[in-house]
Order: sequence, then C-alpha cells, then structure tokens
Amino acid sequence: MKKVTGRLTLPSEANFLEQTKEMMARLGADALRDSDGTKLPEEVKDLDAQIYTTYFVAREHNDFARKHLSERQQCYLMTEFVTAEGKTLSIPLLRGFFEQQIELDLLHDPVKYWQVIDRTTGETVLPEQWRFDEATGTVLLRTAQPYHQYTVDFLAYIAWDPTSMYNHLTNDWGDREHQIPFNAMAPNSSAFMEAELERWLRENPKTDIVRFTTFFYHFTLIFNDLAREKYVDWFGYSASVSAEAMDAFEKEKGYRLMPEDIVDEGYYNNPFRVPSRAFRDYLDFLSRFVAEKARRLVDLVHRYGKKAVMFLGDNWIGTEPYGRYFAQIGLDGVVGSVGDGVTLRLISDIPNVAFTEGRFLPYFFPDTFYEGNDPSVEAQKNWLTARRAIMRKPVQRIGYGGYLSLAYQFPRFTSYIERIADEYRDILSRIEGQRPYTFAKVAVLNCWGELRRWQPYIVAHGKWYKRCYSYMGMMEALAGMDVEVVFLSFDEVAERGVDSSVDVIINAGDAGTAWSGGTAFGDARVTEALRRFVYEGGGLIGVGEPSALPREGRYFQLADLFGVDREMGFSQSTNRYFNQAQPAHFITQDEPGPIALERFGEPVTNLYATDAQTQILSAQGGEIQMAAREVGEGRSFYVTGLPYCPENVRLLKRAIHYVARRERQLCRYYAEPAGIEVAAYPQIRQYAVLNNGTEPCEGVVYDGEGRPAKVHLAPGEIRWFEE
Amino acid sequence: MKKVTGRLTLPSEANFLEQTKEMMARLGADALRDSDGTKLPEEVKDLDAQIYTTYFVAREHNDFARKHLSERQQCYLMTEFVTAEGKTLSIPLLRGFFEQQIELDLLHDPVKYWQVIDRTTGETVLPEQWRFDEATGTVLLRTAQPYHQYTVDFLAYIAWDPTSMYNHLTNDWGDREHQIPFNAMAPNSSAFMEAELERWLRENPKTDIVRFTTFFYHFTLIFNDLAREKYVDWFGYSASVSAEAMDAFEKEKGYRLMPEDIVDEGYYNNPFRVPSRAFRDYLDFLSRFVAEKARRLVDLVHRYGKKAVMFLGDNWIGTEPYGRYFAQIGLDGVVGSVGDGVTLRLISDIPNVAFTEGRFLPYFFPDTFYEGNDPSVEAQKNWLTARRAIMRKPVQRIGYGGYLSLAYQFPRFTSYIERIADEYRDILSRIEGQRPYTFAKVAVLNCWGELRRWQPYIVAHGKWYKRCYSYMGMMEALAGMDVEVVFLSFDEVAERGVDSSVDVIINAGDAGTAWSGGTAFGDARVTEALRRFVYEGGGLIGVGEPSALPREGRYFQLADLFGVDREMGFSQSTNRYFNQAQPAHFITQDEPGPIALERFGEPVTNLYATDAQTQILSAQGGEIQMAAREVGEGRSFYVTGLPYCPENVRLLKRAIHYVARRERQLCRYYAEPAGIEVAAYPQIRQYAVLNNGTEPCEGVVYDGEGRPAKVHLAPGEIRWFEE
Repeated sequence: MKKVTGRLTLPSEANFLEQTKEMMARLGADALRDSDGTKLPEEVKDLDAQIYTTYFVAREHNDFARKHLSERQQCYLMTEFVTAEGKTLSIPLLRGFFEQQIELDLLHDPVKYWQVIDRTTGETVLPEQWRFDEATGTVLLRTAQPYHQYTVDFLAYIAWDPTSMYNHLTNDWGDREHQIPFNAMAPNSSAFMEAELERWLRENPKTDIVRFTTFFYHFTLIFNDLAREKYVDWFGYSASVSAEAMDAFEKEKGYRLMPEDIVDEGYYNNPFRVPSRAFRDYLDFLSRFVAEKARRLVDLVHRYGKKAVMFLGDNWIGTEPYGRYFAQIGLDGVVGSVGDGVTLRLISDIPNVAFTEGRFLPYFFPDTFYEGNDPSVEAQKNWLTARRAIMRKPVQRIGYGGYLSLAYQFPRFTSYIERIADEYRDILSRIEGQRPYTFAKVAVLNCWGELRRWQPYIVAHGKWYKRCYSYMGMMEALAGMDVEVVFLSFDEVAERGVDSSVDVIINAGDAGTAWSGGTAFGDARVTEALRRFVYEGGGLIGVGEPSALPREGRYFQLADLFGVDREMGFSQSTNRYFNQAQPAHFITQDEPGPIALERFGEPVTNLYATDAQTQILSAQGGEIQMAAREVGEGRSFYVTGLPYCPENVRLLKRAIHYVARRERQLCRYYAEPAGIEVAAYPQIRQYAVLNNGTEPCEGVVYDGEGRPAKVHLAPGEIRWFEE
Repeated sequence: MKKVTGRLTLPSEANFLEQTKEMMARLGADALRDSDGTKLPEEVKDLDAQIYTTYFVAREHNDFARKHLSERQQCYLMTEFVTAEGKTLSIPLLRGFFEQQIELDLLHDPVKYWQVIDRTTGETVLPEQWRFDEATGTVLLRTAQPYHQYTVDFLAYIAWDPTSMYNHLTNDWGDREHQIPFNAMAPNSSAFMEAELERWLRENPKTDIVRFTTFFYHFTLIFNDLAREKYVDWFGYSASVSAEAMDAFEKEKGYRLMPEDIVDEGYYNNPFRVPSRAFRDYLDFLSRFVAEKARRLVDLVHRYGKKAVMFLGDNWIGTEPYGRYFAQIGLDGVVGSVGDGVTLRLISDIPNVAFTEGRFLPYFFPDTFYEGNDPSVEAQKNWLTARRAIMRKPVQRIGYGGYLSLAYQFPRFTSYIERIADEYRDILSRIEGQRPYTFAKVAVLNCWGELRRWQPYIVAHGKWYKRCYSYMGMMEALAGMDVEVVFLSFDEVAERGVDSSVDVIINAGDAGTAWSGGTAFGDARVTEALRRFVYEGGGLIGVGEPSALPREGRYFQLADLFGVDREMGFSQSTNRYFNQAQPAHFITQDEPGPIALERFGEPVTNLYATDAQTQILSAQGGEIQMAAREVGEGRSFYVTGLPYCPENVRLLKRAIHYVARRERQLCRYYAEPAGIEVAAYPQIRQYAVLNNGTEPCEGVVYDGEGRPAKVHLAPGEIRWFEE
C-alpha cells in the first residue's frame, strides 16, 4: 500500500538539499518553508513541494523606514507613578523604558495626544498646568498637589520591532541592524507596503504560499531599561495606535479617544480587563482598518497566482480571526503555534479559510536540540495534548520550524515525528469533515464571547501564569472533550438570553476580570437570564470566582445558583453550618479518596455553603473546594480551579454530565481510567481510543451503547474501532 | 507586714457563708456580687464587703412586660433572598428565624416601616406593588420580575431577651419563663424603668453598687429555626431600633432612615462595614438617647447613696464608652469581661469613670469546673495575657463570676487566683497613676478611630474568627507593648491630617472593610495626608490588605509607600523582578531562619514588590509575606498577618522601632528571648520583667541604659528592679 503523504510543512535551509529530500520522504512532507534566520536556496525551492516564504509587511525594510522615521509605528505608554513632594513636579517620560526600543514623539502636539493624570484624585490635569520639556524628556507640572501621584500617558515611537528586538537580544545578534517597524496607516508606508510586496512577488516566482508574519501591528511587548521584558500582552493593542489612528478613529466613530482609553491605568486594556465601550470601539476600528488593508495585500498575492496565509502571532493585532472583519481579508490559510489543545483549537476553529496549519513544538532551535537532551520528549507531550483537540476539530496541516539540520542530528526525534506525521494523516483520512460525537453543548461565558474563542486566560502566548493555570486547565480539558464548545458574551446574554441549544454554561475567572465578568453581573438582564436558564433545566458551572461582584449582600451574584459564596469580611456575624463534605457523589465517583489540594489550583479561600441544600464535594483544610446544587429544574457545579491533568478532565466531564442531567450517558464512548479517552464519529461508525499518557495503560472502553471491553494500550497509542 | 487587700470582687451565693468568709480572707476580697442564677443571702450581704447587685433595666420584669407587649423591643431583620419564578412572588418573613425569639410586628404600618428590595437591580419595590399578608406571614409581590431575587427588611418584635434565651437554651432551663425585653423609648416602659428602679433601690438597702447589666438594648443576637445561633454581632444596633426610634430619629436628624440603613444588605451594619452617613447618624442618635435615659437611672442610684456601674456587654448598645455621650451617663465604674490583653485595655482605657473592673476568666461554671479538669490552666493563660496589658494601663479592680461553691472545690485553682490577687495588688500599688515608659506613639487607623478603641476585629466578644486572628494578634501585641496607642479615623486624617506627635500609623484589615478603610482611600485628602506623613519621616505599618481599593492602577492605594501591591489579575502582563527575599534585616534579626508560614496568619496571595527599592523580608511558597521600604524621610513595613505569639510581638516591636527610625532604642528596657518583656516606670525608677510563658525562662534583661543582665524567671514570674 502506498504511503499516504502530504499535509506537512518542514523547514529547510542552505546546504541541506539531500537531507531535506530524505526528510521529506520519511515524513511525507509536501511543503517547505524558511524560518527566522534561514532562507531557502534555489535548489530547495525546485523540489517537489509547495514553497512557503515568510514575508514581513511592516519591518525588514529599513532602507524605506529610515527615510520615513515619522511613519514609524507608535504606542501609548504610561510613565511610572511619580509623587509630588512640592508644588511643582517633573515627570520623566522614558524612565524604566528601553531607550533602544522607545523614542519620544516630538512631532505631535502633546496637548492633543497626551494625558497627564492625578492618580490620587483620578482627574486629568488641564493642559494649562503642564508642559513638555523636550530637553529633559520630562513633563513639568506647574501646580502639582503635594503628595499626590501623577502619571503621563504619552505617545512614543517604536524604534525597534519587538520580535526583531526579542530575537536579537535573545540570540545576541550584536550589531545586526535593528528592524524599524512602520505604520500602515501612514501614507508613504501604506503605499510602500503594496508596492514592495508587488515587487517582491514578481521576484519570487518559486514561492507558492506567502506566509505573512503577520500584518501591521505587533502585540504589546515592551522592554525595560535593563533590556529585559517589562510588559507583554499577546492581545495588546497599545502598539497599534498612532497620531493617525487617533485622528482617524475620531472621524470614523464621531468622538475622540483619550490616551487613557488605551493606557487604562497602566493595565493597557489587556483582555483580563472588562472592556470599556471606547476600547471596544477602538478594537473594531482597528480591526476594520487591518482587514481592509490586508485585503489589498492578499489580493496582490492572489493576482500573482500564489496563496496567502498568515501566522497567528507577532504582528497579528487587529486580525481577530473570530472577529467580524476577518473573512474580508480573504486569506487562504492561517498558521499558528500549537502548545497544547487550547492553542490547537484556537487555530483549527478559525472560520473562513481554506486551511489551518499547526506549527508544532519543539521549534528546531539549540535551546531544545542540544547534546544530552531528547527533544522527542517535548514532541510527544506536545502531540498528545494537541491530539485530543485534533480529534474534536483538526487543523488541515501540521508543520515544524527552525533548523532542519539541527533536528536531523536527533534520530530518536526524527523517527518520533515521522510517527506523528503518519498518525496525524491517518486521523485526518478518517475524520476530516466528520462531526464528532458530543454529549453536550457547553457555552463559556465571559465579556469577550466568540471574538476571543479559545483565547481566555492567555497573557503571553505559551507562558504559564499563576493566576491562570487553574482556569486554563478547564479550557484545556474542554479543547479535547466530546462536547460542543461555544463562547458566549454577557452582551449576548443581556440582549438575547441563553440559546435553548446550550446545555451547560461555564463562568470561570478571578473576580472583576473580563473572564468572570465583573460589572456585567450588575446588569439585571444577565443574572435574570442565567437564573432563568438554570431554573428551566440548564447546567451551570463556576470556577474560581464566578459571577463575583460585591453588591446587594452577595459576593457571588449567582450564589443562589452555586450554593456557595465567599466571605469577604462582612458577614462573619452570620453562622455557617453547612460546610461539611458529603461522602459520595456522582461527580467524585472516580476519586479513591479526598482529592489532593493541588488538583484545585490556586486556593479560593473563605467559601461557605449558603444553606443545607448545597452538596459539598470537597472540604479540606478548613476550606471548601467543590460543591454542587440542584436549583429549580437545573443544576450547578462549583470548583475553585481545575489545573490540567487527566483526573481533572474526568472530573469536569462528570460535572458536565451531572449538571446537564445526563449521568446515564456517561459510559457512552467512554473509557477508564482517566488517562484514556474516546473520540467517536457515529456517521462513519468508528471510534478511537486514545492513551494520552506516556506509559502503557490497561483499561476498559465503552462503545456507543455503553458495552465495556478491556483494552491494553501502548504509550500514546491511538486505536480505532469500528461499530 | 499586714497583707494588702482589696480591689477584688468575688461571687457568693446562698448557704455558703463560712467558705465565703474564708475565700474573702484568702483572696483579700473587698466586694461580693451575685451572678446569673444566684442571689446573695442576707447574711452574706452583712459581711464586711461592698455588695454588688446585678440589675436588669429592660428585662426580668415580665409582669410589666406582659401587659405592654406593644412596647417590647424590636429589631430590623431581612428575609432570605427569594427568587421570583413567575410574575408574582410570596416572601415568607419569618422563615429561618426562631419563632420563640422573633414575632412579626402587626401594629405598625409595613408601608412605613418595611422595605422590599429587588436585589437583582438593587431597587426598592414600590409599596403599590406589594402587600403584607398577615394570615400567612408573607409579603406578596403583585408584579415581580421573573428570576430576580427579592428580600424584605421588616420590623419585628423580640419576644425573648437574647441573653436570657442564650442562657436558657444553653443550660436547658426547660419551662422557666422567657424574659421579655421592653423598649426604653416607649412611654410606659420608660416610666416603669425609673419607678421600678426606685422601688428596688428602696428595697435593697444593703446593695452598695448597682451593677447594670446593662441598660436598654442588646447587641444583635438572632437564633435560627433550629434554635441555634444565626447571627451575632457584639456591636450590632439592629435590636435597638423600633417604630418609635425611627420616628424620633426623623424628628431629631431631619430625615427619615430607611430600613435598609440598618439592614445594610443583610450585613446589618456590623463594624466591618464602612459606616454610611445614615448609620453614623443613627449611632449618634441612639447613643445620645441611651446616655440621657441612663443618666436618669444613675442619678436615682446616686440619690440612694449607692454607686452605679455598668457591665460592658449584653445590653450595652448605645453606651459606646469611648463616644461623646458616655461621660454624661455619670457612671462610677465599668465592669467588663477580660479574655486577653485587648479586652483588658478595652475596659481599662475607658475614660470618665472612677474605676474600671475586669472580670477574669474562667467563669465559675460547670463547663470549666468539672472533675478531671484543671481550671487554673485557663486562669493562668488569662492572667498572663491580661497582665501585659495591665502593665500599660491597669483596671482598678478585678473580679470573678459564677458559683463560688464550685470553684471552692478546686484548691489548685483557688491558690492560683490567690496568687493572681496578690500579684495584681502589688502591681497596682507600684504603678497606679504612673506613666509607663513608651518608645513610640502608634496610631491605629481605621473608619472608627477612638470611638471603637481596642474594638477592631471583634465579631462576637471572645470568639476566634478566621478572618480576624491575623489582625487581632497585632492588636493583642500592642495592648501590652511599651507604646502609646491611639486610634485614628479617616475622617480625622481627611480633615486635620496626621498629628505631629504620632510616630507610626498602622492600617490593617481585609480589603473594603472599615478596618483597612475601603472607600476612604478614594478620598485624596486621606492618601495625601498619609503620604505626607511618611515622606516627612513618619512610620507606616500595613497588615493584610492595607489601603486596598482597586482604582487608578493600584490595588493598595499606598503601594508606593508599602513597596508591595497585590496582583488581582489585571497586571499579569507586567513582569515582576523584585520578589526575592533579602538575607538580613533589623526587623528579622531575632529570627533563626525562615519564619514559619503560620506566623503570618491567613495568606494574602499574589503580592509583588513594586520595584527594587522594596526590601522583601519573607518570601516563601512563591508568595511574599513581609516587606519594608524607605520612602522620603520615612519608612514602611508590610506583613500579611500577625497572629498572637511572643515572637510576633517581638517582630512587631522591631518593626515599629524600624519604621520610627529608633533601632538604637530597641534595647532600652528590653529583654530576650521574646517570651520575656519589660515594663518600665521611669518616674518611680522601677521596671518589671515579666515571663509571659508557663515555663521557666533564662534570658537577658536590658535596663533603661541598655545594660544587659542575666535573669532566670520562674513560670509566669514578674520580677521588679529598681534603677
């Protein structure tokens, strides 16, 4: 039988032709790409493969950029908090920033584009009371209030593209030139981008696929005066602003943004913030601009008979792949980095493109590929977590990046990714276009809804955060679970209620954040709709501080539904009698004893049961960790946190069955122990049993009728059954 | 040498004359009292002792009360939260309450005195939309919003005095009559109270001291439908309201209170709540009424040649011993229960009385005095913690309560309290009227200031609370430390700044509470004054969540002063580089290694240092527990919590020295290890060395010049030195 090939992109490089051919054959690769720091030589471009070429729209053209420094990209920054010790105050603007990255904007009127704020009163200081001193790079307050603290929101130029800077500093590139980012909204840059792309397209006939990395604006990545990372937000729009953008926004939306609408008390409107109307408007404004401008580039690419894909990262700001303007860009595909199941789904669920491609880890770089290390360990972990998600919604292609010559020296690794490639293609050959079996429709409720599908709790892409892992684990569980996952915003709930197709709503996050909802729970339409949903039979799951908003005698506004609330110091006078855990429950049936506290993630302290109807499922160390409740026709489940592990995936799966009143369906396409999962495709009468672990596993598999059968699975094995 | 006697009150009882005489002689008692459940027989009253007689003003007169049921005391209560599932709703008023304690008020117009609130919107439901159904004891909403939650604030009668009820239920008093509390603001009750007292005074010529227990209104103590405690707040004013009070308030203050001003979302304006203007007005209104009315009773007592004291507890609401009306009552003394140093100072600091008296523990009741138990253990713990505070500010008398005949059977106990009595009198003979040595003036800053001197963090008097012990330990440390302690309110700071005599300000408490200040930190005058204080050389200490109020980019509004802030989820994008503990610091110099986490009390998580200038003094388990900082001319110290233990007392003492820049004074009147303390009286050139522990202790004592000398102290020993 002929080996199935394709769906796989490999990097290549100069002086590596024969080994490239060998690797292509072994892995069945049908595409080759360049990477950061590598260029494909002509002889590689002539191989029987689709050629991806990375293209930078807004940097890597310093000859142009140097001539138009006034068109460099800009950003809004906030100074440090500075205390007035007397009646005047000097606020240094650039203190704490990296002088090679950030330059003051001396061209645009500070009065028009800056904002000085008394952070002690919250008031904006009138322009008459301050002036910018160019010589010292400070703002001088003529009439400061002694012992108030002040900040300045100011517009600056970005002198060095952040990714270029990051790679340069990380890899010690010495005096290699700093790439200057330029602004698509500025006239010369805008024209240059198109002309230069067209010139490039003409000169690169062997490129089949233009890989935009990405379009115009970088996520917020600011370094400090020690050349170390100061601020990173993968979603940050702060580096998409400019004097032009501020003016164009006013024209389009009919009102003027304040710098503080972007700077946002120094939180820079990161997605954890409940978004203001002004920031939403700006996001909309910028996304429309990006889509329109990107569309012109994509059209050019198509005119030259090539395909256009974008890399979801770097300069992806404004592309919002789940936003209303994304389809207009007309891209053929999206490539993104896959770190786990969530990031796989973040890519694979993107609509309106012909294909999505996951760039798997590890990247072929010396940080992983060094003597004595076995990169196949990371590859396996990466694959096994991503595979769960692929079973739910596959990417159409996979790929790798970096130096192929480096990976080539690790035979254990190359044979492992050979196995991945074959396994991936086998999966795709079976399930592409199929609807996997689902037992429930689950809606994740937060301020962003579908716009930020699979994106909650991400700060810097791929990095672990102490306040996030407890929620991320829940998302990761869902990414590979046999449920349909939708993302619901509070606006939708307020305006239209909860769609009757939804079985379970999950609200998860820290108090006050956009994920838990914060002020959204002050909107009676929201609490009313959620209460109605549960009373009429819906399931509700809360993680962490769901519905938290201290008002009207409650901390959790839906404490009545969850059956637990959090003592914040005001109701200690009320005796709490109902905090004893009950011995047995459907949700905890798989647990041999008390669940280790680490399984619940970051502690949420001082919870109490509202009354005797609350079923406490875990109470340890004087605290409650988990509870369930019947409310009206519906049910709820609460847990402090769910870091990712097979047992927590199972716990969540059981909880969803419980709140959806589908306990009897649990053993349909099911397996035990928790390390094994089943993905079923009833239309083709097949189901797969996946060992997600790296050890052999004995278990029991249940088919669609709940009939058990013993299985023994090799490490990481996927085994297919026909019905 | 003749034995010094006096300053001691003992309980006595019937059929116990000879032993009473014996105990009086052994303990040097000069006063005898009755107790709950005991009466002094005539022959005891004839002994050579001052006779205290407990007098109940507003209960224990059921013959009167039964005839005036409409004048029973009242309270504002809130129903449970009830969810509307349809367009009408019935809210049961008494569900969850104890029917023997609470009765609906059928006399006063619900429209005028009740308040129905839609807790989903926060709006008050108009009276046209509801009615009270007397037959079912429910409020019926005609036009409910489906899936909103509602509550009713309603006025009820208290059918059973809470202390009488508590004792009755605790001691299983069966069918003994329930004491009915009546309302001093109602005309018949008001007149009766005076007439009855006068009659009683006439009939009790042998009483020397009338011990009011107490005056008119009980702190809030509500039981549930299982006859168990439902709500207890030692400061609660909810049971001081009545239709009369609501009307009189309007007359006096010129506006009408809403029931919700008392009910306060079900938090019932407990002292942890930042007090509203309306509640403060009510407190003032009631305190004035109580003082005026109590004055009339005290005058009567004086007219009969007796003294009047009040017991600080039970019906003490409105007496506010540190309030502006207390002096007007004209009391001779105050008696209060002493559980520790804080409660000792709470009594001993009371101004405007000739004497204060501490009733020490254990109470001579069978719960402690039973076979096999050694009550002297509790007595010793009680004495050793209270003694520290006595050294700072003594009560003029001590005493015990309960059944003397019971204590008499425990010779180890009676000889221990004999020793206490002698030791106490010896201390008083030396220090009464002296100013003890202090090294700093410390101001505890919260919403209540001096009005609630030594009262912060108390929920139910004498009970441990999870969210309080971390702060209570700090208060307990101060109660016996060689510092002058004042209590400062935010209003004072806002209006007048910080007095220059203050060396150190302490702000301690959970976020949003009256103790940490909550919204007070939104007042620029407050933060400005505190910042000025520190910049000009003052010391600032924060415990828990000091200055917490999420606004303007900060969670701790004084993060710049403390050098730490708390990550609440919004600034995770900002890298934190400065969270490593430094190896050595003046404050931690006594600590042999990392401090056990229990020493820091309840965790305050996700703290971070604002910059490199912050000195981290403890960082364990990925969290910061303690930090210090130099700011301007001043200094700050932050700690998550300080449960009471000798080592934490020492830590706080060092921290106060540090922030007050008095490190070099530390060894003046000082001792090591932490279990030994020194109290010095420079005017009389004496100082005492106290072993606060129950084990012998070897240590070093430093005199006023810092000269060390070895000491060996017996368990609990106090040793005096002359200079």
